[in-house]
Order: sequence, then structure tokens, then C-alpha cells
Amino acid sequence: MYSDYFHPLEGFFVSENDMVMENIVVDIQTIKRETQVLYHRAGPRSEVCFNPDDVRAAIVTCGRLSPGVNTVVRELVIGLWSQCGVRDIRGIRSGYRGFYSSDPVALTPKLVDNWHRTGGTVLETSRGGFDLQKIVDGIEANGFNQVYIIGGDGTMKGAVKVFEEVKRRRLKVSIVGIPNSVDNDVGVIDRSFGFHTAVETAQSAINAAHVEAESAPNGVGLVRLMGRTTGHIALNSTLGSRDVDCCLIPENPFYLEGEGGLFEFLEHRLAENGHFVLVVAEGAGQELIPRRPEDKDKRDEYGNPVFLDVGPWLRDELKNWWKKHHPNEQFTLKYIDPTYMIRAVPGNAADNIYCTLLAHSAIHGVMAGYTGFAAGMINGVYAYIPLDRVAATQNFVDVNDHKWAWMTSVTNQPDFSCLAKSIKEE
Amino acid sequence: MYSDYFHPLEGFFVSENDMVMENIVVDIQTIKRETQVLYHRAGPRSEVCFNPDDVRAAIVTCGRLSPGVNTVVRELVIGLWSQCGVRDIRGIRSGYRGFYSSDPVALTPKLVDNWHRTGGTVLETSRGGFDLQKIVDGIEANGFNQVYIIGGDGTMKGAVKVFEEVKRRRLKVSIVGIPNSVDNDVGVIDRSFGFHTAVETAQSAINAAHVEAESAPNGVGLVRLMGRTTGHIALNSTLGSRDVDCCLIPENPFYLEGEGGLFEFLEHRLAENGHFVLVVAEGAGQELIPRRPEDKDKRDEYGNPVFLDVGPWLRDELKNWWKKHHPNEQFTLKYIDPTYMIRAVPGNAADNIYCTLLAHSAIHGVMAGYTGFAAGMINGVYAYIPLDRVAATQNFVDVNDHKWAWMTSVTNQPDFSCLAKSIKEE
Amino acid sequence: MYSDYFHPLEGFFVSENDMVMENIVVDIQTIKRETQVLYHRAGPRSEVCFNPDDVRAAIVTCGRLSPGVNTVVRELVIGLWSQCGVRDIRGIRSGYRGFYSSDPVALTPKLVDNWHRTGGTVLETSRGGFDLQKIVDGIEANGFNQVYIIGGDGTMKGAVKVFEEVKRRRLKVSIVGIPNSVDNDVGVIDRSFGFHTAVETAQSAINAAHVEAESAPNGVGLVRLMGRTTGHIALNSTLGSRDVDCCLIPENPFYLEGEGGLFEFLEHRLAENGHFVLVVAEGAGQELIPRRPEDKDKRDEYGNPVFLDVGPWLRDELKNWWKKHHPNEQFTLKYIDPTYMIRAVPGNAADNIYCTLLAHSAIHGVMAGYTGFAAGMINGVYAYIPLDRVAATQNFVDVNDHKWAWMTSVTNQPDFSCLAKSIKEE
Amino acid sequence: MYSDYFHPLEGFFVSENDMVMENIVVDIQTIKRETQVLYHRAGPRSEVCFNPDDVRAAIVTCGRLSPGVNTVVRELVIGLWSQCGVRDIRGIRSGYRGFYSSDPVALTPKLVDNWHRTGGTVLETSRGGFDLQKIVDGIEANGFNQVYIIGGDGTMKGAVKVFEEVKRRRLKVSIVGIPNSVDNDVGVIDRSFGFHTAVETAQSAINAAHVEAESAPNGVGLVRLMGRTTGHIALNSTLGSRDVDCCLIPENPFYLEGEGGLFEFLEHRLAENGHFVLVVAEGAGQELIPRRPEDKDKRDEYGNPVFLDVGPWLRDELKNWWKKHHPNEQFTLKYIDPTYMIRAVPGNAADNIYCTLLAHSAIHGVMAGYTGFAAGMINGVYAYIPLDRVAATQNFVDVNDHKWAWMTSVTNQPDFSCLAKSIKEE
Repeated sequence: MYSDYFHPLEGFFVSENDMVMENIVVDIQTIKRETQVLYHRAGPRSEVCFNPDDVRAAIVTCGRLSPGVNTVVRELVIGLWSQCGVRDIRGIRSGYRGFYSSDPVALTPKLVDNWHRTGGTVLETSRGGFDLQKIVDGIEANGFNQVYIIGGDGTMKGAVKVFEEVKRRRLKVSIVGIPNSVDNDVGVIDRSFGFHTAVETAQSAINAAHVEAESAPNGVGLVRLMGRTTGHIALNSTLGSRDVDCCLIPENPFYLEGEGGLFEFLEHRLAENGHFVLVVAEGAGQELIPRRPEDKDKRDEYGNPVFLDVGPWLRDELKNWWKKHHPNEQFTLKYIDPTYMIRAVPGNAADNIYCTLLAHSAIHGVMAGYTGFAAGMINGVYAYIPLDRVAATQNFVDVNDHKWAWMTSVTNQPDFSCLAKSIKEE
Repeated sequence: MYSDYFHPLEGFFVSENDMVMENIVVDIQTIKRETQVLYHRAGPRSEVCFNPDDVRAAIVTCGRLSPGVNTVVRELVIGLWSQCGVRDIRGIRSGYRGFYSSDPVALTPKLVDNWHRTGGTVLETSRGGFDLQKIVDGIEANGFNQVYIIGGDGTMKGAVKVFEEVKRRRLKVSIVGIPNSVDNDVGVIDRSFGFHTAVETAQSAINAAHVEAESAPNGVGLVRLMGRTTGHIALNSTLGSRDVDCCLIPENPFYLEGEGGLFEFLEHRLAENGHFVLVVAEGAGQELIPRRPEDKDKRDEYGNPVFLDVGPWLRDELKNWWKKHHPNEQFTLKYIDPTYMIRAVPGNAADNIYCTLLAHSAIHGVMAGYTGFAAGMINGVYAYIPLDRVAATQNFVDVNDHKWAWMTSVTNQPDFSCLAKSIKEE
Repeated sequence: MYSDYFHPLEGFFVSENDMVMENIVVDIQTIKRETQVLYHRAGPRSEVCFNPDDVRAAIVTCGRLSPGVNTVVRELVIGLWSQCGVRDIRGIRSGYRGFYSSDPVALTPKLVDNWHRTGGTVLETSRGGFDLQKIVDGIEANGFNQVYIIGGDGTMKGAVKVFEEVKRRRLKVSIVGIPNSVDNDVGVIDRSFGFHTAVETAQSAINAAHVEAESAPNGVGLVRLMGRTTGHIALNSTLGSRDVDCCLIPENPFYLEGEGGLFEFLEHRLAENGHFVLVVAEGAGQELIPRRPEDKDKRDEYGNPVFLDVGPWLRDELKNWWKKHHPNEQFTLKYIDPTYMIRAVPGNAADNIYCTLLAHSAIHGVMAGYTGFAAGMINGVYAYIPLDRVAATQNFVDVNDHKWAWMTSVTNQPDFSCLAKSIKEE
Repeated sequence: MYSDYFHPLEGFFVSENDMVMENIVVDIQTIKRETQVLYHRAGPRSEVCFNPDDVRAAIVTCGRLSPGVNTVVRELVIGLWSQCGVRDIRGIRSGYRGFYSSDPVALTPKLVDNWHRTGGTVLETSRGGFDLQKIVDGIEANGFNQVYIIGGDGTMKGAVKVFEEVKRRRLKVSIVGIPNSVDNDVGVIDRSFGFHTAVETAQSAINAAHVEAESAPNGVGLVRLMGRTTGHIALNSTLGSRDVDCCLIPENPFYLEGEGGLFEFLEHRLAENGHFVLVVAEGAGQELIPRRPEDKDKRDEYGNPVFLDVGPWLRDELKNWWKKHHPNEQFTLKYIDPTYMIRAVPGNAADNIYCTLLAHSAIHGVMAGYTGFAAGMINGVYAYIPLDRVAATQNFVDVNDHKWAWMTSVTNQPDFSCLAKSIKEE
């Protein structure tokens, strides 16, 4: 037939047999469990396991900032207070270390009333400080029996350990996680809260790059967006804009020189259009950036090789390459790193609603007696997910799926990875 | 147990047996079809049924405006052109009537390049003008073999008729709908495009109402939001804000006077807080607004009773009631109708991405030989839905579900409908 | 010469002899006073007349809302507290009536810290309530010796009376006004605070009108903007946008029917462009709107004829006229009244800076011993203006000046007033 | 008296004799010219010196980007076309070099219709390329008789040379400058266009810095804002925000170590508040940043010492100092450089109006026969200023004036410069 016209999407065909289900909430009694991974639906249960007078709740925010953290905290406080009658709610300051290094703050609806209008986290966060025994000692010493933990990948891994230590000590403490990763790298759930806001806010950085690129002969705008292990923000920001010529993400290796490489593509586009907008996820190209000998064996606190900043490296590579190959032609490259301007905004309406329902889901789960779970949205429905499953899975961009194919069809960028593979194979 | 503390959510309990499925794309060969409503997954097929040189595509925008219409048109044009090699793409002007009353406009990637930056619809829309025979005559006369129809509920109903007439005449014309309703009242699909943007934009109207209410003694801010048959915008805007005291929607009848009525609640809140923010969906309270005798039998073009504007009526009722019951107390009511300022904005990033993928889904379906379908998202996955099913179903706010319950727990407004029912029963 | 090419500006020629001065701050000792109206420059004096321990300051906000009121209050409080060491600062609630009807609120830097982020006035305002004796009794009873009055035209007139009564009673009370009128109708000063923000915010209403107009065949977008006696907001919003076809203001009479009238212009533009955006200041066309017999002699609280709403009247006139003259042609008119959405936003950066410097100017003047003055900007320099002069002058759009001429050259609208005059003369 | 309470403003007293003039447009015939610097008022003259059929106008944009450049170009084109009947208008591409290195682009109202919605410059700009003879050769070869030059300080200096060379060659070519410097460093005029927009946009960077600072224990947000020789953007952004603890500008030397230095102030504020927001103009502290030996004698194209980036240097200095003096305390510094995100936005309404009136002023001056002048606003009135005077003067922040004093009273930062001086004197 005429399938050769679909060239940009080649290899991403959907089978005629692929069907989408309309109703995805099922009764566990009637379904054959072995055929499906299932999660408990979130929501209020008819019976609750806590006398509100006995509840002593702790809320902690860990890890990197993302839009909406304060909304989640606000809604936890107001939900516990107004719907459940809980009066003893404490905020832990500066992340996990706050359990043992500073006094918890009493949280009331009045205090948190305007927190959703502010980006960041009023409770503060900090890196490191995860000392399991001290943390659980702190939980015990303070008499907390509900612990709400907001944070990303590393934080959820920590929450699993806290949950297990609490079990080991036979403490009656419910542990619930609310995954929070602006990179959207948390697995199982549809998306992390704050992600929509981040993609929205990234538009203004891409717009600026586009304007800068168009305002100079051979103008290039380079935007580095967040995403250490995954390119969700880069991909979605590129799709949300229409001004990006090329999008580089960790899941899709690229290379600079030679046939089919980035330099060639850049050269071609500049000759054609006179300007070029490049979006790169911070984790892209790690394997390309030269490590100084003294850094070769350095590891971060999680044992990973120290992370290298792709932005300035790529900026310099592009400038040097141009100077070498087009010494007499003008070339203007503007580099934009909007990280903090993206992540420090308050959540937009969509994220604020999502944060509210996540917080309420978490409360209902805890009050109903669940523990060791995370609250999240799965296929549009709020559900409870075992903490260890959330901590063990990651959400990558599937470069064999439509969304990526659609992106490449929008930018018409070459399939670097495909060529990268063929080069390796040679 | 302690379930009595969950009072605002009483009656909305989730069963322990309710489970959410992780994987919702299934192989039609292996699933028992009778147990599930299934839809074909959207995406490119390995074989296509059109030679691009033979394609003559028409795109038409009908019905009320919503953010993102121009993005869908743009992506249809660019997708057909760049991915499928189609060169003959026409825009129909001013809705259905354009098929027979004006010449189609040639659409090219260059022409539509910036359309996504503009709200409304460059192709223009208009009410009425649905003359089936003339429309299909126009399709035949122009030689269109792919017709992309963007519009709401009424438009989709029209598309079904066009599809059937095309079949009756044995024309080789593919008909595809892309549902577009800022009210979010289209059934089956997760949400209409433009809805997220509308909810976002409505925040500024609610903010203004809140500021006005707080700046006067006994200040009331009344915001009328879109939603003729359903209160999705009102509900989600209320959840996205934290400043609304009461939200009235068509699905949840209310009443003004007497115990548990709106006036009593208003009086109570003003006494307590000194100000009051009220959001009302345009279709709420239709049964309460007095019809002039001469209007009693008037019908609109679809045979429905003529629609009455709840906003000014409610404004006057509130003012009069206060004057009567508190003649010596100040009272300031500010009424805001932000309809056009909400619906006339361009789509935000989330909606722009959604519009892109809807347009691509539609193209792939048509090129693969599907017809009489709509492109939509179901549980987060893009799918093809029979046009008649889309046209026959409506998406209401489920006031027996969590989201509504959560909203009432946020506003603490009384359950008017519950009382309304008990009053009726007496 | 070729002056006939400047047709749109005919009549607005600048003389070659018109010169602009660079240095406008002069020494009163060296200038011939009779040749110039001069105002004391604002700023700290080397000697102050108040012992901060003895200061008891009152701040009151009156009249209609405008962006920045809360910033002025915040800066008065923080300026008095931090720079002058004043500790006894009170907010009067709900405008002038608050001096006698409710207890003042103690204001501290901590309390007002975030007020500049909020539109409206946290101190509340209300109409009426100006009872001179009660107000001055209240000032005396509370022991206030510095009274900061924020408000518009009517409020400044009231401030003059308060100042005179205070003098009559020989009270040692400094009275200072900070003029606040979103309409920008206060005389002498360059512009009212909040005006820039209002013009900025009005852009989104004009954008919406433009989108609505362009999305329908013969589409008209009608925007009513604030401005009872003057069209500054309408004029500047029109100049700030490029999408307005016609701008109607109180200073420039217009008429509907006949040659050179609005209807003719509308008809012409629709035939030419297919759409039409019309901006009307709320005070335009008062003499054209029919008054009901029972309203003929009605007066508002200031003795002016009751104000009629030009927006809905004009909307209906346009619709009816079209229906009558083009019964078979489509016509879509969307009416937008963004008043509250414009005035209820917080000040933008330019206005926030202006508010800060106005507040500081006021404080310095009072501390230096001035009274009966207003703080304002004159030709870009902060100055002290006698209250009675501010209250007695109004700032109109000069339709014989360039700005108006430039506006008409942008819209190419006919000079209604010119024709209106010639008609009258006939 | 009590003047000791005004401590933050000490030294900035205004004299009682300082008076502000109300009327600053005077008749040159009646004023004693020696007492005042006077400029011709801008506006249409009754006689013009060009036959529009003979006009061949060139428009060029040079130097760094600022919001509103495209608006000025658009209004020049539309003004020349619609008001003056000029039909031959050309855009010079990529700055001065475009006069000799590429073909001019024909500009029409239709082409430029939407340019005001885009940041940057559609005509493109570039650095360098000022070859006087080639430029004037290009002007002659193309037959241009009106040349509109948009650009900053360096561009205006170039315009003077072009003007003089044109005179030398006795060409009948009018040269007019429209000063454009986002830094606001152009002298004589009230402010550069785009400056208001830049200050507005900078707020979001300061907000982000504030959120980041507040979300971490001992959190510091450092924002580098534009301003090579002057701190206007830094100062006004600080005044527009309320969240800045310290503002460093080129006009006010600072130092890091020792009593009264930045480190001490930082330490004090962190101890007090736990967070610190620091705004630094890019040109601040040049004398403090160590130059590498090989850079010592390097000069930029204007012969100035190569400019050093204060941002990363200050970031590292702060981090190292903290590490050294508080090795066991957490410290989080986030560095934000929003340059391109600030300057690449389109003009806001205030700037768009300003750009329009500047463009019209320029046209009227040229048509009336003026040449060698710049169009600008002086004390709120549009005027014509000799090009050489504009090129020769610079607009600095007066740190002996109120605005700076008010800023320091807002931040309470120490007077580094005062101490710096006293240290030097020792």
C-alpha cells in the first residue's frame, strides 16, 4: 500500500488488535487476578482505624523542589483537620534530617491557608541526612503514628526503609508516600504532580531561545531542561512548543560529529532556515562528556558516577565546531538554563487539583488502615500502590512508542540513536 | 469505628474490592469481548488505504469556541502534509454552512504555521447552517474524500448524519470527528481539549471575585462560568482555586430560601468571614428562573427550552434578599461573567500537546481506512470511538463520586440537592 | 509643501517654537515665581516635626478599587515603622465611615508583609459614609495626629473638608492624600497609581474581543472599559493593543446613525475586513442613552445625573441596527465587561515602584511638617501638591493633542466629534 | 529635631527650596535660553519637506535585544505608509553590516502587522560590522534618503558618525536615532523603551530566587540582572519586588570581607531570617574580580577591558566563604541568570505605547526636515535631541538621590560604598 509515506513513524505501528478498555475499575472478586496487575482504588472507606484524638501526624518534604509541594502539605493539613478531626499535625523541617535535628512545627489550617500560592516548600527541604535509625527514633520519640512523606525517587526508597524499620520495631505507625518528581521519573503513576506546571513554564524558556535564535544570523538557542535519567520535560516541552528543531534526551543517545550527527543536522537547518532551537535534557549525552581524570572514580551519595552538566559542554562544543568549520561566518549561540525559574513556581490549576486529590487519597488510605503505600493516579484513577513497587520502578520515555515518534515527526530531527547503533555495530 | 468523622464524604465510600488496572491496552484476540467495552487504539498502521496524491481533505470547525481549535487544524494540515505527503487540504469557512455557501480555503504548512498562538478559530465558526443534503452535495462537488470535523456535542450529532448520508450515497469519503467542547460535556473521552486551559484561565476570574469580596464589608463575588448541561468547569475551577465558598452546578439542584438553602448559607458565611465567593455554572438553576409567559413555549434550534441566564438572575435575587432581610447593613455584590475571556485564549502547553496527538490520531485512523469515528483519549490512551457513540453519550459530573464530595469538603457548602430532595418528598 | 499627506493629524501641529525643558527642579529663590506653577519637591527634609514616640498614624482607603492600594498601605506602614521609628499605626476599616463605625486595626510590618501581592484593599473600602463631623470626632477621639487618605476624586474632595475642619478645630493633625483612581482622572499628577496595571490587564479583554470577532463571519467584539468622565484607560488600551478598530471616550462625542456615524463605519469595516473590535469607555455616549422618564431627575449621592451603562445599550443598538439593515446576513456580537478582572489584580512592577515612592513621599512630607497636601508625580518628579488643587482639577484626554490624534491614525476611525459639531451647527 | 530617626536616608535631604515645575513646554521666543537646556518638542509640523513619492526609507536594528524593537519597526512602517503615504520602506538585515552585506527587505504594513507580538528583532541584529564608508556607500547606492537607526549607546555613537559622513558627502539623507537599551543607560531621555518590560519580567527571576532561598536552610538565591555600566534594572527590580535582601550595582562599589562587607551582611541576615536574596547587576564588582594574567591587557572591540561575569564569580566566592567559616552548617545557593528570558519577551502595553509614540515622533521629525537627532521622552514629553548629545551622555543611577536611598531603606543593606571609601582613605 502507501505506507512508505509514513516514513517518520516507521517502526512504530500499532496493531489492529490493540484495544483500549473503557472500564478499568474492577471488582477483585470477579476478575482473574493473575491476568492483571491491580491496585486498590483510593477513596474513603466506610470504616476507619484511627480515633482522630489519638492521631499524631507528621508531614515531611524531601528531595528537589517541584511545583505543588506546598499545595499537598496544605491539603494534608486541611483534610486531616476538617474531614477527619485530627488536631495534632506537625511539619518536619528540612527533609528527613528534620526528624532528628530540629523541632517539628505545629501545622494548622490557618497557618497553611495561603501556602498553595507559593512555590518551593515552606517546610524546607535538603539533600542527604537520611539516617534510618535516627529518623525512626525521632518518629518514636515524637509519638507520630501517621507519617506523610513527599519526595522523589530517592525519597521513596528511603520511605520503604522507614516503613520496614517501623515494622521491625513493631511500631503502630502508618507510612505513606506522595511521589514528587518534577522530572516525572516515578514509575507506575500516570505523572508526577508539578510536571504539567513545569512543562507550561518551560515554554517561556523555549520562546526566549526561539526569539534569540531568530534575531541573529545563524542564531542558535540552546535550552537545558531538567531530567537526569529521563527526558519527559524536554519531550513534552518540545511538543507543547512548535519552535524546537531538535530535542535530546537520555533515552535516545546522540552523537556530534559525522554523518547523521548533531553538527550535520545543525549545519543543514541553519543553511535552510537561518536559526536553530535545541532542547537538551540535563541527563542527555552523559557518556559523551569527557570526565577529568580526577573525576573518573568520583561517586555521588547514591554511588552513581558524578553527574556532568551537558548544557555548558554542548554550548562550547557547538561554538568550537562552528568556528572551526565556518571561521568567517557569523554564529550566535544563546544558552538558557531555566531550571529554578521552572521549578520554583506554584502549581497551576491542573496540578493544584491533582495535589488536592493526592493528599485526600493519602489521608483516606491511612485512616482506613493502609500503610507502606503511595498515593498516585493510574490510568486516570486514584489508587494505592505499594511503596516498594513505586520505589523500584522508573518512568522512562519510550522511544519505541508514538509520542517520541510524533515528536521526531514534528522536529524532523534525525534518529541519532538508530545511527549511533549502526555505527557501534560496524 | 470512627467513620463518623468523615462526615463530609458520607455516602461516597469506596469498596475494598475496587481495583484499578495497570495495563489497559489488550489484544482483542485474547480478551473475552463481552466483558469489556473496547476501542481500537489510535496510531499509525503498517498499511494505509490512501494514495496521498489522491487525497483531498477538508477541515471544518463548528460550534462554540474553545482553546486549541487552531492547534488541531494546524496539526492536521502539517501532519497530512509532512507525514503523509498530502498536498490538497482545504479549510471550510464558518462551520457546516461553509460546505455549500463559500469557497474552501487552501491550507498549507506555511499558512497555518502560527495558528496555534491564536485563540478562537481562524477558519471561523457559526451557529446553525446544518443542511445535510447541501453539505454532502458540497463534499461531493468538491471531491473531498477525507473530512475532519471539529466541534461539540451538536457537531458530532451532525457528523453522524453526514457519515450516514455519505454511506447511503456510497461515497468513498472518510468522516472523522475531533470532539471539542470547552464545557467538557462530551462522553466516553477523558476530557475535551481546551478544558484544562479554560479551568486555568477561570482562576483569574475567581481571584478577581475573591479580591472584590474581601475589599468590602459583606462583600460577595459571583462568577458565572461556562457549562450548560454540566458543571465540570465550575467544579474544577473551584478545586483549582481555594477561595470559593460555594459552587452551583446543573447536576446538583439547589434552592434559595429556607433551611439549608443558599441564602441561609450565604448569611452564615458572611457573619463568619465577612465575604463570600460564589461560582455558578451557566446551566445551574434553570428550573428556578422564572420564565416570562411569552417565553414558556419558546424552543431553541435543537428543540430545547430557551436557555436562561442564571448569572444576572442570581445576582438580583441575592441583592434583593439582602436588602429585604438586612436593610441597614452594607452589602456589595460584584458579578463577573468571564466567558469570552476564558474561551478565547490559545491552548496552554498541556492542551497543545493533547491537540497535536488528537490530530495525529485522527490522520492515522483515516489513512488506515477507518471512517465514522472520533479520535479521543480514553483512560490516558488515544483511541478511535464510533462517532454515534460519542454523539450519544454525555459526560456529567457524578455527584455521587469522590470529586464532588471532595469539592463540598473543600467549600463546606451544604448538600442542597439532598435537602432539595427531602423537601420535595415532604 | 506636502503637508496634505498628514491628513489624520491635521489640526494637531506642533509649533517650531515649542521647547521641552531638561531641568525642571528649580530653586524657588532664583526663579520668578509668577511665570510658573511650582510645587515643593518631595523627599526627606533635614529637620522633622514629629517625635516618633508621639506619632499616632491612621491609614484609610476609600473609593473604588485600583491595583496597588495594598502596596501603598504596606509601604506607609513599613516606612513609618522602619525609617521613622513610629510604632502606633492604625488601619481604618471600610473607608471614611470606619473613623466612627468600627475600631481601627493595629498595623505592623509583619501583618502587612505580603499585602502587595493581593489586589483590592485588605482594609476594605465602601461607598458613602462621609459624615464630616463624625469623622473628625473619630480622629480626635482616637488621638490620631497623622492621617493618610487613599482614594479618588471624591475622596480627595472629602480630604479637603477634613483638613479644613481639623484646622477649624485647631487640631494638630497632618492630613495627606494619596490620589488613587484607576480611571486616571486625577488632575495635576502624571498618572494615578494602578493605571499602568489596568491598561496592561485590559489587553487580555481586547485580545478576547479580537479573537471572538475574528472567529465569526461579521464578528464584532465590544469591550467596555472603565472611565466615567475620561477615556484614559480606553485610549491607552487601544494604543497598547493593535487590534482595535474604534475607540469611544467621553471627551469625544460620537453618534450612531447617518453619514460619518458609528454604524456607517462599522458597516464599512465589516465589508472590508469581516470583523470589528470596538472599545468604549463607560462614560462615553451618556447623552445618547435614553433615560426612562422616571430616571430623568434622579441624582446620585454627589448630585450628578444617575450614570447609565453604555455597554449593554451599545450592544443592543448595534444588534438591532444590523438586524434591520442586513436581515439575511450573519452577525455575531460578543460583549465583554472586564471591569473587576482589571481592577482587582495586584499592581505590576512599575506600579509597585510608583506606590512605594508615593508612600515614602507622603511620609516625608508629613514628618517634615506639611499638611493638607497630596503626594504625586509631576513631570516625572515626586512633589507635594495642595489638596484643594488636586481635588479641584481633573485629568481629561486632550482630543486636540497628539496622543488622541495618533490613536485615530492607528484605528483610522472617523472624527465623530468633528462631524457631530458640524451637524449641530447646521 | 527628630531627624536622627531618618537614619537610612541620612545625607539625602531635599531642600525646602527645591520646586517642581508644572508646565515644562515653553515658547523659545519668550524664554531666556541661557537658563535652560531646551529640546524641540516632537510632533507633526504644519509643513513637511519630503514628497512621499520621493522617500526611500531604511530601518535598521543594531546592538543588544530589548523588548519592543519590533514594535518600533512596525510603527515606523505603518506610520510612514498610512500617515505619510510613503511606499518605499526597506529593512536592513543584521545591523549596520546589512547596509553593505545583504539586500534590504521591502517592508509593508501587511508584512509587519504582527511583529509587535514577537520579542527580539525580525530584522535581526549582530555585533560589530560598523564600517563607516561601506555603510554610507550602501546608503548612497540604495538611494535611501531617510535612515531610521534603532540601537543602544554604541549604535548612537555610530549614528553620529553616519550623520557626519552623510553631511560631509553632502547627501540629502535624514538620519534619526531611536535609542534602545534594555539597561536604560542612554542619557537625556526619561527611560529606554523595553525597560519597563524588562523590570516586570525580572520579577519572576527574583520570585524564583526567593522561593529557592526559602525552601532550604541557609538558602541563598542569587540573581544576576543586566546592566553593564548601570544598575537601573537591578535597582528597579529590587524596588518592584519586596523580596530582595541586597542589591549590588556598578555605581555603588562593594566589598566582600571584613566589617561592613557583603559576607558579614549575609551572615547576619541568614542568622536572622534563614534565607537571603541577592540581586547583582552584571557590571557590579568588575574591579573585584581577579583577571587572569593573560586577560589583563585584553580589550573588547570598543577598547574597554574585557568584561568579566560577576555572577559565577560571586556564586563561587559566597560558597567558598561559607564552607570555610561554617564548615558544618548546611548552605544552599541557587544562581539564576535570566538574561535571555528577560530581554526576549515582547513589550508590555506601557512599552508598546511608548514605542508607538517614539516611532511617530521620529517620522514627524524627519518629515519636517530635522536630521541628526534622536526621538525620546524628556520629563514625560516627546522631544528631539541632537544625536551627538544622546551619544555623549549616559544615564547612571544617582546613589546620592532618593531612589537609591529608598532602596537601601527597603533592603536595609549596608552602605558598602561609604565604608569602601573610608577603608580606602585609611
